[in-house]
Amino acid sequence: MERNLIIETIEKVGQEVLLKGWVESRRDHGKLIFLDVRDHTGTVQMVINPKVSEEAHKTASGLSVQDVISLMGKVNARPKGAENPDLPTGTVEIEVKKLEMLSDAESLPFDFGARELPINLDTALDFRPLTLRHPKNQAIFRIQAEIVKAFRDFLTERSFVEIQSPKITAESTEGGANVFRVDYFGLPAYLAQSPQFYKQIMVGVYERVFTIGQVYRAEEHNTTRHVNEYTSLDLEFGFIQDHTDIIDLEIDFLKYLFPYLDETVKPEIEFLGIKLPTVGDVPSLKLREAQAIIEREFDRKVSHEPDLSPQDERDICQYAQEKLGSEFIFITHQPVDHRPMYTMPDEADPGYTKSFDLLFRGIEITTGGQRIHDYDQLVSSIKKRGLSPENFSFYLMAFKYGLPPEGGLAIGLERLTAKIVGAENVREATLFPRDVTRIDLPLAKIKNHEKKGR
Amino acid sequence: MERNLIIETIEKVGQEVLLKGWVESRRDHGKLIFLDVRDHTGTVQMVINPKVSEEAHKTASGLSVQDVISLMGKVNARPKGAENPDLPTGTVEIEVKKLEMLSDAESLPFDFGARELPINLDTALDFRPLTLRHPKNQAIFRIQAEIVKAFRDFLTERSFVEIQSPKITAESTEGGANVFRVDYFGLPAYLAQSPQFYKQIMVGVYERVFTIGQVYRAEEHNTTRHVNEYTSLDLEFGFIQDHTDIIDLEIDFLKYLFPYLDETVKPEIEFLGIKLPTVGDVPSLKLREAQAIIEREFDRKVSHEPDLSPQDERDICQYAQEKLGSEFIFITHQPVDHRPMYTMPDEADPGYTKSFDLLFRGIEITTGGQRIHDYDQLVSSIKKRGLSPENFSFYLMAFKYGLPPEGGLAIGLERLTAKIVGAENVREATLFPRDVTRIDLPLAKIKNHEKKGR
Repeated sequence: MERNLIIETIEKVGQEVLLKGWVESRRDHGKLIFLDVRDHTGTVQMVINPKVSEEAHKTASGLSVQDVISLMGKVNARPKGAENPDLPTGTVEIEVKKLEMLSDAESLPFDFGARELPINLDTALDFRPLTLRHPKNQAIFRIQAEIVKAFRDFLTERSFVEIQSPKITAESTEGGANVFRVDYFGLPAYLAQSPQFYKQIMVGVYERVFTIGQVYRAEEHNTTRHVNEYTSLDLEFGFIQDHTDIIDLEIDFLKYLFPYLDETVKPEIEFLGIKLPTVGDVPSLKLREAQAIIEREFDRKVSHEPDLSPQDERDICQYAQEKLGSEFIFITHQPVDHRPMYTMPDEADPGYTKSFDLLFRGIEITTGGQRIHDYDQLVSSIKKRGLSPENFSFYLMAFKYGLPPEGGLAIGLERLTAKIVGAENVREATLFPRDVTRIDLPLAKIKNHEKKGR
Repeated sequence: MERNLIIETIEKVGQEVLLKGWVESRRDHGKLIFLDVRDHTGTVQMVINPKVSEEAHKTASGLSVQDVISLMGKVNARPKGAENPDLPTGTVEIEVKKLEMLSDAESLPFDFGARELPINLDTALDFRPLTLRHPKNQAIFRIQAEIVKAFRDFLTERSFVEIQSPKITAESTEGGANVFRVDYFGLPAYLAQSPQFYKQIMVGVYERVFTIGQVYRAEEHNTTRHVNEYTSLDLEFGFIQDHTDIIDLEIDFLKYLFPYLDETVKPEIEFLGIKLPTVGDVPSLKLREAQAIIEREFDRKVSHEPDLSPQDERDICQYAQEKLGSEFIFITHQPVDHRPMYTMPDEADPGYTKSFDLLFRGIEITTGGQRIHDYDQLVSSIKKRGLSPENFSFYLMAFKYGLPPEGGLAIGLERLTAKIVGAENVREATLFPRDVTRIDLPLAKIKNHEKKGR
């Protein structure tokens, strides 16, 4: 007999099925045992009656949550009034005739049945292989997978070509700070902080490119906003007028994204009880304008700062929502000295750049802008930072041999996911977070393993 | 005026257009200048006649290949007999009225016009930002992008969920050899050799998962088959009977892939003059059977070897094509001692595993197999290799808390691409190859930069 999927049981009342999955919960009522069993298509209720199969009942009485089982049974309609409206399969239940254990789970270290796990985030991360199975986490990372798909579909539709960008680099993109060092056959190499150089090079090849991959920041911050390895949704394209072309593209993407999520992961959105933002006209302020508003509305001196602080980001988002009716706001014209050497200065606003950040629900989720495409201007910008153009000779070839006016952006996938699902800490939306204290397990624990000899 | 795309000119005869792109070639015939100009949609011929615009003619007479230009002109039908059947836009040409230089390219270090660049691979890689623009390379990486898309579409259709797998790990997947070391805040960490542990963990969450990303092997081989950073197309799924379920899925993927490529990148396939394989019944041989055939048919002693050599792979592929009518062949049942600790042994064939490689046109492009899903069996397998289960405690949680029988595979994207496009060296199908001699530029050159001080 071929395996049936749990979702199929809805339409198989009266028929025999072979199901396989994980025990989600078990309830004993007198001699009857009830199990909720899930596979990748859903969850359905099993009834194990010793009068139907003594052997199945014996096996079931030893079952616990997360055991993996295979079972044969008959699909019955549930009696009127006993339906479960929370389950897509809530109109049926399975009368179990045969039951087999495929994989025996140890008893769980904490209760798994509640809507929220009764443990703090650190403990949840210590047990990530288990806690990711919790319905809440399943929902978060299904939504994340669809965000990624939406980004790709949106760009592919617009003739962007996907590229594979390397993560081992000989030169740091942003000029040296905060990079992880790799021993590359005796030569010091670095983990890429972004695919910046490669996506710009590829504008010379395909004009419009995108790439999705992990990027690295060796920042020692231990905050709810930072992880040291994250996923960057990157795009770059040529023949732009200025940074506003990139802003317009991002707005179009957001207008595409949320209806797409509403269509593809509606059950997850409902389970999490979250509200997707609506995207209308997204306001845009120069950094200095935003700072003036913060000074005026929130009575804090911030105009002397080269960028917004986390508190500034929360404040200006609150302002945008309350006064401008948008959960999104672009902040443009960061100072030349506080953007990387490839950032295009704005001739009409000396000292400031044609770059932008996008803030959403209190946090920066995108950085982008127009880049310098003229070879001589770029070399001069590199020199101004005290860097040596010779170290960038590979990258510079793209400009030496003709690159159009171009620009792009990078969206932090985990931050965007976190804000969509209402997670307070970006780690909740990072599948296996790496930070200053953790690579899967706490670093202290790993060090201890090291000491014991490997 | 809004920019028009070059492909649109076919349907705009008699109309004014604004085009932007790269000069691909220039030919002077008396006072007329002919340019081929490309954007991301195609290439079209421009005619610059001083009688139409003296200024445009003056600008054009200074143009060289790879210059980036913007131009306004009128679309004319080409005279009968002057059509170019090689170009989709070969029925039209543009009478240029205004011409502007957007980015001035230096003169190229070698002739760019031929079907094959007149330089060796090493030089081509030294100039990668330029040479990737050559039509041959444009075709190769467009095909690669579609392979990636086909893999995702195929799996998404089958309810596989995409995951983002970390690249920084605390433990090497394969047990210690050939890993790049990263300084992670003072702790030695490693670059992932594969997403193996994470995709297995995620089978416990979504049952069926896939992930696409870079993986790392610090192998000092300098061969046409190896690069040190490559892209792995990974999938993993639960509730399998054995490794043949995975083989069957891969055959289904191949049957999907090639018709898909034929549909989406037909011009590139034709430009490269390549022939896509047909996928029928793909033969499968145990490693020992393959070795016996090689001994018999190619008269070389190989049976004592634990795996196929590169020459063996070429030979058995030749045999499969000539005698079994397939460009693909699965080799199964590698010895337990030569597969990683997570590989499922075959009880029916002691000492050998339920694992497989897929060979295609003389090279291994996939490794896969059933994994051990039982916690105790896995711990015992780890110990047998002299490894400490404590070092794998995070990974082991997935098994401790119930994992079904499962398995998966990994396809090397660059190798598959290389074999499809007929490239002899995997570097030709690697966008920015990293190997023992090169990160973008030759390592010797980078070392020289380092010495000069940074």
